[in-house]
Formats: sequence, C-alpha cells, structure tokens
Amino acid sequence: MKDIQSQPDSRRINIKKVGVKDISYPITVLDKAKTVQRTVARVNMYVNLPHQFKGTHMSRFVEILNRFHGNINLKSFHSILDAMKNRLQAEEAHMEIEFPFFLKHRDCGAAMAAISEYSCKMHGSLDKVDDLILTVQVPISAPSPIQSNEGLPKSLGRWGIADVSLRFSHFIWIEDLIEMVENITCHDLSWHDEMDTSGDSLSVEDMTKRLSKKIADHPHISWFSVTVENFSKNYSTFATLEWPAEGDTFRHWPTERQ
Amino acid sequence: MKDIQSQPDSRRINIKKVGVKDISYPITVLDKAKTVQRTVARVNMYVNLPHQFKGTHMSRFVEILNRFHGNINLKSFHSILDAMKNRLQAEEAHMEIEFPFFLKHRDCGAAMAAISEYSCKMHGSLDKVDDLILTVQVPISAPSPIQSNEGLPKSLGRWGIADVSLRFSHFIWIEDLIEMVENITCHDLSWHDEMDTSGDSLSVEDMTKRLSKKIADHPHISWFSVTVENFSKNYSTFATLEWPAEGDTFRHWPTERQ
Amino acid sequence: MKDIQSQPDSRRINIKKVGVKDISYPITVLDKAKTVQRTVARVNMYVNLPHQFKGTHMSRFVEILNRFHGNINLKSFHSILDAMKNRLQAEEAHMEIEFPFFLKHRDCGAAMAAISEYSCKMHGSLDKVDDLILTVQVPISAPSPIQSNEGLPKSLGRWGIADVSLRFSHFIWIEDLIEMVENITCHDLSWHDEMDTSGDSLSVEDMTKRLSKKIADHPHISWFSVTVENFSKNYSTFATLEWPAEGDTFRHWPTERQ
Amino acid sequence: MKDIQSQPDSRRINIKKVGVKDISYPITVLDKAKTVQRTVARVNMYVNLPHQFKGTHMSRFVEILNRFHGNINLKSFHSILDAMKNRLQAEEAHMEIEFPFFLKHRDCGAAMAAISEYSCKMHGSLDKVDDLILTVQVPISAPSPIQSNEGLPKSLGRWGIADVSLRFSHFIWIEDLIEMVENITCHDLSWHDEMDTSGDSLSVEDMTKRLSKKIADHPHISWFSVTVENFSKNYSTFATLEWPAEGDTFRHWPTERQ
Repeated sequence: MKDIQSQPDSRRINIKKVGVKDISYPITVLDKAKTVQRTVARVNMYVNLPHQFKGTHMSRFVEILNRFHGNINLKSFHSILDAMKNRLQAEEAHMEIEFPFFLKHRDCGAAMAAISEYSCKMHGSLDKVDDLILTVQVPISAPSPIQSNEGLPKSLGRWGIADVSLRFSHFIWIEDLIEMVENITCHDLSWHDEMDTSGDSLSVEDMTKRLSKKIADHPHISWFSVTVENFSKNYSTFATLEWPAEGDTFRHWPTERQ
Repeated sequence: MKDIQSQPDSRRINIKKVGVKDISYPITVLDKAKTVQRTVARVNMYVNLPHQFKGTHMSRFVEILNRFHGNINLKSFHSILDAMKNRLQAEEAHMEIEFPFFLKHRDCGAAMAAISEYSCKMHGSLDKVDDLILTVQVPISAPSPIQSNEGLPKSLGRWGIADVSLRFSHFIWIEDLIEMVENITCHDLSWHDEMDTSGDSLSVEDMTKRLSKKIADHPHISWFSVTVENFSKNYSTFATLEWPAEGDTFRHWPTERQ
Repeated sequence: MKDIQSQPDSRRINIKKVGVKDISYPITVLDKAKTVQRTVARVNMYVNLPHQFKGTHMSRFVEILNRFHGNINLKSFHSILDAMKNRLQAEEAHMEIEFPFFLKHRDCGAAMAAISEYSCKMHGSLDKVDDLILTVQVPISAPSPIQSNEGLPKSLGRWGIADVSLRFSHFIWIEDLIEMVENITCHDLSWHDEMDTSGDSLSVEDMTKRLSKKIADHPHISWFSVTVENFSKNYSTFATLEWPAEGDTFRHWPTERQ
Repeated sequence: MKDIQSQPDSRRINIKKVGVKDISYPITVLDKAKTVQRTVARVNMYVNLPHQFKGTHMSRFVEILNRFHGNINLKSFHSILDAMKNRLQAEEAHMEIEFPFFLKHRDCGAAMAAISEYSCKMHGSLDKVDDLILTVQVPISAPSPIQSNEGLPKSLGRWGIADVSLRFSHFIWIEDLIEMVENITCHDLSWHDEMDTSGDSLSVEDMTKRLSKKIADHPHISWFSVTVENFSKNYSTFATLEWPAEGDTFRHWPTERQ
C-alpha cells in the first residue's frame, strides 16, 4: 500500500517542533512584595526533533515539569529549558506559560476596589543563548465622569485592552509593568477633556504611540511590541507598534527635529 | 438506606435526556424582508429515553437533521420534533439551535455603519403540546457623545449585553424584537443627560425594568425573561427579571396607582 | 418621551436575580491530604432584589468577597452567603464558584503520569435553609490496549467526559468522588473485551446507568445528576440521568424483580 | 541611553499594523460542485499605517467589506486587498478570513453519515505582490474496530487534529485538500494492525511525516506547514513540519538513498 522506498529521509527532513501543549498546571509567581503568588498556568513545552526521537519520549516533558513542580517561575525558567535540551538531546528548547496574575488595588475605571486580574505570558527559549519574552495584557475601561453614591467611578464598560510584550536586560516586576501601562491608560478625566474636542486621544493609534513612548524610555527594556485594541459592539479596532522593528538600524527612540 | 444488592431497573429508572449536541450545521432563517438568510447553527437534539433504546439509534437524530437539510427554520421546527418523537418512539423531543443573525443597519453606538451580529437561540420541545422559546442577545455600546470627523459616533467600548427570552402567541420577527430592545438601549445622548445627574439610568436594574416594561406591553408575548449585563474590567454586574414568574397569578403588567 | 405614570411598580414586580458574575478570584481548597490547594476560581454572587436596591450597592458583593479573601472554601460557604443576605437585605443569596482541581496520580488512559485537572463547581444558596450542589467533571480517555516502550498506555484520544452533580448529607471529599467515577470509567481492557462483542459498554446510556448505580449506592449522597458525553469528530452524543427525579416518590434505588 | 525629552516622531516610528478584527460576516465559498456555499466568517483587515492616518478612517475597512458583501471569496481576495491599499493609501494590506466549511460525506471514524465541519482560514496579503496562505483543519477520530448494529463505525472519541497550511501555484479545491489529508488519517483498520505491534503509526511525528510526504508530492503546492496534534485527557502532544523551511535551498522532497 505505501512505498517503503519513498519514505521521507529523517536525516534531511527535520520536524520543526515536537512537544506537549495545553497542560494546565499550578505554578508560583514571586510578588514584588516578596510573597509567593500561587496561580494556574497553561503550559506548552517543545523542542526541535532530535534524531531517533520516538513519540514515547513525550512523557519526558511532563517528567521534567513534575520535577520542578512548585518551583516553576521566572527564575527556574533557564534550568527547565536546560533540562529539556539535555533529556531530549535537542538543539533548541521552548517553554510557554500563560497565567492570570492578581493585583489587589483600586485600579482606575473599576466600579469598585477589587482584586484585578491580568493575563500574563512568558515565552522562554534556549539554543546557544537564552531568550525570554514577557507579555502582560492590561484591560482598559470606558472613560467615566460619573461618581457613584459611594464615591466609586461607575463602569461604562470595556473600552479595550493593551497587550505589551517585551525583552528586558534587567529583571522587571510584572507589577511595575502594569503600573507603567495603567499610568497611560487610566486618565479618564483628561480623556474627557480631549473628547470634547476631537476624541482623538482615544484612538488606538494614539494610545499605542503614547504607550510605546513610555516603554521606550525604560532603561531595561531592549525590545517591545505594543498592541492596543478598542472594542466596538461587533468587532474591534487595533494598532500594533514594534520597536526596534526588524531591519531597524537605529537603537534609540527618535526625537522630533527642533 | 439503599439495597446494595440492587441492580438498576431500566423499567423504572429512565434516562432523562439522550441525544446529540454541538452539531455545527448550516441553516436558513426567513428574513422579515422575505429573503432567506443563510447562517450556521449549533444544534442539540435530544429525547427522553424510550424503552429498549440502543446507542446505535443515535444516528437517527442526524438522519432526521439531514432530511430537513436546507429547510431548518422556525416553520419546520414542529415537523422535526414530530419526526424525532416518532422515529425514536419518545414521549418528549427537544431541539435547540443557536446561530448568529445578521442585520445591516446603522445601529446606535457602532463606530460605523456595519452588518451587526446578534446571537439567537430557539429551543423547541414537543410532548403533548408544542413549546418554543426564542432568545436574542443584543449588545449594548458604551454611551458616546463624540461625533467623528466622518459623522459617525466613536466607539467608547462595550457597555454590556441584553439577553431577552420569550414565548409568543403569534409569530414575531427577530428584527422587530431587536428593534424593540435597541429602542431602549440606544439613547446615548439621553443617557448622558441623566448621567450628569445620577447615572442611574445606566444601572442594570433600571435597564432591566425599562426593557421588561416595553416587552410586557407587546400583545403577542405571553412570557419573557430579561437579563441585562454590564461589563466591568474584571467582572460583570447583572440583573434578571422574569414575567410572569412562577407562581404569578396576574397576567397583566402592573401600573402605578394614581 | 416615556410615560412616567406607567412605570413598573417595584412593589409588585421584583427582579429575580441581581449581582456580579465572572469574577476571577484566587481561592483555597482543602485537600483530603489535609494540605491546602490554591487554585483560581470564577465566581458569581447574586441575590433577589431587595426593595430600594440601588446599583451602587453592587460594590458590596466584592467587599464581602474580599473580606473572605484567602478563606473561600466549602467550609466558609455558609458564612459568605449569610453575609450577603444581611449586607444586601436579601431574602435569598447565591454563590457559584468554578475552579480547576488538581490530583497527582497515574490515572487510567493518561499517556503518562501527570497532574490531572478536574473542573469542579460549587453552587451554594441560602434562604431559610442552606443548599449546596457539588459538581465534578471527569474526562474519559479513549480505551487503549497499547503499552508504549516505556510501559505507559498510549493515548488514543478523548472519548468523552462524565459530569456528576450531587447533594450530600455528610461531607464528601472531591478526591473520593473522582475516584468513584474513575473506577467505572477506566476499565480500558474490560472495555476492549466487550468491544469485541457488542461495544455497548461504551454507549453513553450504559455508562450513565453504571455511574448512577454506583453513586446511588453511596450512603451520603441524597440527590445526583449524571451526564456522560461521548465526543465524535463533529458533535457529541450524551445521556443524562437524574435521581431522585422531580416527582419521584420513592427514595431508594429500585431493585430488579426476581 | 534614551532621550527623556524626546517625542515619538511619526515620520520615523511607523505603526506596524492598524485595522479592524473579529468582524463576524456572512461570506460565500465556491464549491467544487460549482455550487455556492454560504457560511459565516470571522474577518480581520489591517494595513501598515499610512502617514496622516486618523482613527476615523477605520470606517473605511468596513465600507470596503460591505462593498464586496455577498462576493467575498478566494476570487475577490485580490480586489479587496487592492481596494484597501488604495482607499487607505497603504503600502501593504492584509485580510484574514476564518470560516467553517461543510462537506456532506460519510467520513471515516464518524459514528454516522453526517455533514462534516472543517475549520478553514485564508490569509491574503498584498504589497508589491500577492500572497495567499490557505489553512484547513481536519479532525482525526480515535481508531475503531467496532461496527455498530447499523453498520456504522462506533466513535471511540477524538484522537486529534491535523492542521495544514499551504501556498499554491495553481488553485486547489478545499475539498481536494481535505480528501488528501483524510486519505492518510483515516486508515483505522491498518492503524489497528500496526497498533498490535508498536502503535508507532499513531505517533504525531509519524503522522506529520506521512502527511508531509503526501502534500510535498502535490505539483501545485509550493510551501506547506503541517501540525498534527494528539489529544490526551489533560493536554496534547504535537509535531510540526514546515517545508521548504526558511533557509532550505532544495525544492524537492528527498528520497532515501538506495
């Protein structure tokens, strides 16, 4: 039925990725407050296919995950990737973890003080060198001039979301990143001032550029991609800015010519 | 308390529901404009378990669905349920179809003229008598005073959603139901007037009662349930009103005593 | 525009439910191993609408949730519901929490030893009396005769899921409930024996009845509903059995007539 | 390192993408049977940010979509992209449409003859030249030796899914692509023969290579990426093969040396 002679030659055709995905797993994240936050992550682990790889080796991914159980966080990322490379004789190892991160603070636009949830993601990879991309999604409320009887801003709904991915040269706390973003996205009243004129300050392009400017100023961030999404009833509008973009030669944020 | 020796007696322990679910299926919906709108539905079909039922009989559900292929709509609902009862020798038959319904109109709060999508659901059942519940979900935009350069309202995000379920004594067009709901939910500017005072007109309870009053006035609606949901950043607030509620004896909407 | 005289009369038309929903919140669940398992729940809290209720009172739901922060579990359910009744002057209070529960064990059908995830739900309500319904979803693997080179069963995919809801007269550990279900759903080889003959042991009706029989035998379970779902490529088949069903007068599982 | 005084210079920092996303929209797909299949797509449209772009221009994306209403398909893709480039003065235009495609056939592994659903995606882009990537997802059933009383194979659940993306030099029918994939993924009985020995024929790597070999043989396919995913209870295993991979110089699939 199938021609044995014409089987693909594994010496030349390599599988690009092989691994496990969508593992729901409890993890710990170190708070800036030095306390350990326990949350639940969705984990993907994969490598480039080593020669002689057999499917049964899949169990090794989960063995490694279980070995680090209770100690899966930003600091152990390198050790896990290293164990994957060795145990699976791979040239390249990847791990992606996605998890809800919780902050208890009166954030702008919330109808009440609450524990806010932020979706976070870390994508670590290791071949010759380490690489780590941190992503945080910060929801943006509809601007509101209203104060409720109990003095809390009244929710006018969901304006959209800011998605920030970055590489850093020195460790950055997730809390600090969230605060940096919310400092831009939470100026409800100033929004309203401008709204009365043009409303342009609410455009996804403007918001994307304002966020990018802020992030580019951070001394420890070497690369970032910002996407701002504005929800309409039946669809969304969005803008994405990446910097430095591929092919960019300059490595500093440009200044206006005077 | 219970007889450990006992074996379930299929003559006395009946399975409550058995059937197929989550079938993705193309259907047609008749427009008020007398044109046929083709969309894709998610279909559930189930019956109470007839005696001697065997699992292999499951194929009969899909046989029936295929027999009505291209002719699945409000009008053929009874025939399909009837076929299910007969073919499966059941005392009771149910079919639920959920589908996106499209309206091309400049709806309030949309940042631009567009084809609006409304999630609709029909749940038909047949034992001795027919029963049909129609559900429509109408998204609600954040109120916006802003006119863009092109004269379209600018989206300030998603305020929430109105979910209306009802039984009717005479046929009601989905379009008319949507219009009835949007007449209440779309008064952006009037919202803003009131917002400056109390903002109460934006509360889910108030919106639920205003919608209920409107729907209760419709001569052909014999029962309804209204849920209004307001999105905050990390959660939602909601209110539900059902009328007549179980146990309600009166069948007319009350008016204030003068 | 709107007739003030014809406003609904809040003395007679009551809102059925009002509250908050879809709050993502960290909670703790007590293990049978007496250790505390930290996970993340989706929380809904609602009451019947008390007279003079104002939307701004919504913040009280989250205030209560925050007050119990770090102590939200089966044992504190009653206290939270009680606080809701009092703080919101409601006649009836409800809280639903849904969360992933993790068990580390070599479960049947898993391609490797792993931490297994089970979706759990608790729905507590309080009017005059307490009521609590516990729901656990147990995934079912496709039966597999294969042993991999490393001696682990090879995954042949997802057969379906068993959804068990129950009320208990005495506390039941989630672990014990899961074990009770998996004792029925995990007999891969016995399945295969029967498969060679009829395969009926894999029908959703048969599986539902076998699970129901087992659960009905438990002395501390006063009511249950079992749904078994079998995944096909494009849809699912399912069967549901509830016992005692509404209207059932007998309270013991029937025995075969000899 | 960075000039704090600096302001972003829109002449040099360009937004990478701006547009609309998640528009639910009715579309038509031409069948191989020369009949028009109507389905519902999720549409994304975006361009690189032209100079002087204003957010209010967002409405132009939907204007273009509405202009092609009822005529959105593979053939009109170029015209839509061209209209986007011109109307928005962009150097680069992208449109992604994702939709369920229906085939009525007795497919392998289905518990009964049914209308099968396949998730399809088209990503078209236009700068100087056209580019189009077609993606089809083909579900894979768990292998089953069982024949039901009605002679239909009994579902043993969902084994996984094959995700095939490709570029073609000549038009390829979606139906032909699906058939090509199912010819590989549907040999239930042959699977069982091999399963008794090693079961390796069910590994994601083996399935990925067998599919790649088949697709590479097609004269009209210039590039492809194949991912095969196998569902376990709590996670998935997967393998991805892309060919020609970046940097590959040869353009023919290698054969074993004799």
